Amino acid sequence: MPLIRIDVIEGQHSNADLTEVSAAVHRGIVDVFGVPERDQFQIISEHRPGRLVYNKSYLGIERTDRIVMVQVFFSTGRTDDQKKAFYALVAKTIADRTKIRAEDVMISLIENTRSDWSFGGGVAQYLTLPKEQWK
Amino acid sequence: MPLIRIDVIEGQHSNADLTEVSAAVHRGIVDVFGVPERDQFQIISEHRPGRLVYNKSYLGIERTDRIVMVQVFFSTGRTDDQKKAFYALVAKTIADRTKIRAEDVMISLIENTRSDWSFGGGVAQYLTLPKEQWK
Amino acid sequence: MPLIRIDVIEGQHSNADLTEVSAAVHRGIVDVFGVPERDQFQIISEHRPGRLVYNKSYLGIERTDRIVMVQVFFSTGRTDDQKKAFYALVAKTIADRTKIRAEDVMISLIENTRSDWSFGGGVAQYLTLPKEQWK
Repeated sequence: MPLIRIDVIEGQHSNADLTEVSAAVHRGIVDVFGVPERDQFQIISEHRPGRLVYNKSYLGIERTDRIVMVQVFFSTGRTDDQKKAFYALVAKTIADRTKIRAEDVMISLIENTRSDWSFGGGVAQYLTLPKEQWK
Repeated sequence: MPLIRIDVIEGQHSNADLTEVSAAVHRGIVDVFGVPERDQFQIISEHRPGRLVYNKSYLGIERTDRIVMVQVFFSTGRTDDQKKAFYALVAKTIADRTKIRAEDVMISLIENTRSDWSFGGGVAQYLTLPKEQWK
Repeated sequence: MPLIRIDVIEGQHSNADLTEVSAAVHRGIVDVFGVPERDQFQIISEHRPGRLVYNKSYLGIERTDRIVMVQVFFSTGRTDDQKKAFYALVAKTIADRTKIRAEDVMISLIENTRSDWSFGGGVAQYLTLPKEQWK
């Protein structure tokens, strides 16, 4: 269910690292938010230098051109503690597996509801399909 | 009022088919959501292979690289039944008029409110303009 | 905190004008919404002609290919009057400092909450950091 947009500066990351970023975000939504394993939909965009604008020190975090902006659109219902665990897991996983520092992982969330999703075929699956079949 | 983002994989669709996708989504918001005919604002982005990540079978829907991700930002107020009708109409229209299968049409919605829109000139038209003039 | 997406048609704006657009939007969120000066995160995307679809006259506003679509994702809490002041300031500033007309500045807002932001390091700063340190 989440639709995830990942925005980076072109030339800053290898394909392998971007694949790890994609996997880390997916791991977070599966392990922390309880989303089904196959529920993976992401859009990764690379931007020319100067087109991705960021502050290098807001809130005492030192950011570099390796910044990764992750925006997650998903259904409401997660607690603040789950959100905190999600941020921590994603940033740590990315830092562990890529050349990207945890400080360069920025994440924001936008919530909607179950009726706001159609996964193909013109059907609102979360309204019509029994929850046991969400996989 | 809707701002619509349409994301596809580059090289998968002809310009003619993308124009039909654009028109089908617009037809849906006009006919089902009652949006004025001239209220059309869309951003269509093509992504390199590998940059648009999707699961090929989540919820039993078979997806291909011809996947079309449609994200609609619009004002709250539509019922679940209207949303279902919107998904059905858009997927069917696209399948009827292009080489894209209905299964490859993924749609998600994000709602805001009337005060969240300025259509130019620095004015919040939905707060200042009588509804009869929303056209 | 705001994450801002700015979408334009390629070849329509100089780099200098895009920099002014970026600065004008930031000025608006700082001066009207009270966001900290260093809280600047924006993604500017240029699209091929035909990929950014807009109506040339909806609501009586005359738009051209110099259209600038600004989408602001930010925490809830602003009043309608603040939103109106934001639209007015951003459009005027852009019109004053660039070749872009105020009529070509389209703005929409999407709200979330304090828990929906991590600015790096895997931390939900707005939940863990005292407000005096939001700078």
